[in-house]
Amino acid sequence: MFITFEGMDGCGKSTQARLLAETLRAQWGAEKVVVTREPGGTEIGEQIRGVIHSLRNHNMAPLTEFLLYNAARAQIVAELIRPALAQNKIVLCDRYADSTLAYQGYGRQLDMDMVRAVIGYATGGLAPDVTFYLDVDIAEGLARRNQGHARGEELNRMDVQTRDFYERVRAGYVEMQRADPTRWIALDGARPIAQVQQEIRSHTAQRLRQAKV
Amino acid sequence: MFITFEGMDGCGKSTQARLLAETLRAQWGAEKVVVTREPGGTEIGEQIRGVIHSLRNHNMAPLTEFLLYNAARAQIVAELIRPALAQNKIVLCDRYADSTLAYQGYGRQLDMDMVRAVIGYATGGLAPDVTFYLDVDIAEGLARRNQGHARGEELNRMDVQTRDFYERVRAGYVEMQRADPTRWIALDGARPIAQVQQEIRSHTAQRLRQAKV
Repeated sequence: MFITFEGMDGCGKSTQARLLAETLRAQWGAEKVVVTREPGGTEIGEQIRGVIHSLRNHNMAPLTEFLLYNAARAQIVAELIRPALAQNKIVLCDRYADSTLAYQGYGRQLDMDMVRAVIGYATGGLAPDVTFYLDVDIAEGLARRNQGHARGEELNRMDVQTRDFYERVRAGYVEMQRADPTRWIALDGARPIAQVQQEIRSHTAQRLRQAKV
Repeated sequence: MFITFEGMDGCGKSTQARLLAETLRAQWGAEKVVVTREPGGTEIGEQIRGVIHSLRNHNMAPLTEFLLYNAARAQIVAELIRPALAQNKIVLCDRYADSTLAYQGYGRQLDMDMVRAVIGYATGGLAPDVTFYLDVDIAEGLARRNQGHARGEELNRMDVQTRDFYERVRAGYVEMQRADPTRWIALDGARPIAQVQQEIRSHTAQRLRQAKV
């Protein structure tokens, strides 16, 4: 079972992924659950993440950014996700290919056929079984993110885009959900953490039961 | 005019590119000639080069390596090569897309349609006008490279491949030359540096005259 978490920065997906992992580990055993993130999740991927996020790389070409995300993705799929799924583990990933469709496809407006083709190469066609989308208002997401920075969280190159960019990203997420309503589960991310987690737990339990049948 | 230098490590292409640049600068003025290298050539590209070459990244997936080369390439094309060509400069590049065809396509045996498609995305279809291929025997190239390491040159992850790998790379270069004999100029790289440079200068002068017509 491959579960991904998507949404704008500040939507709470990293927190929700971590909380779901705790529940699943208590239930299935620690070794049965893998939690990771994109870009990164492997030693090589984290080096690539550093290049993507570095604020000094303000003049990075959109194509370069796009190819770097997919290079990190090819590594996490080969090194971590596929081996874990082959061992029948539950993999939770904070962002995956849909983020590239949303941010580089819809946000940067790169050619969508190219975006899909390269994602296909990088993942070998591996798609999530379930994707939780945590919806927050753009202003709310930016405000939460700024609180994070005020608490000392890293400010990165993807945090300093225009408002228009984030609106295209959010519209892209909505379009992807319409196109594949079975895989996507959209939740209101503005509600209290425990309430959102309760729904995520319940949907996950249901999907795990279905997968057994 | 966009001129690239290709061949196995140790074939002398970096030296030849540098010597040709000196001649062209004396002739056309320093600002008219750009010399660069792949992967790298830009600040972002050199960071990516560091990830590709790092020996600690011994478990890098072939797809990751392939996408990283193209990420660095997208940056050098957008930031350096296209702007220089638009200003009518002469660009000399030590390795370019043909290296990816040779090393990741023929050498790593990645899917060739994928390799060509991603190179097309990264370069926007920008191909060299002339490509000098410096041919050396594989044993000779490895020996020269080892001398370089003994002198303190960096040993990188691409230097520690199998003999079979280098043979596939070299056969790939030969095949590419057959497919496009107008662009490729193959020279025997085992001869003295000055003699090889003399031929490169003469071919370049001829191509520059043709380009004027």
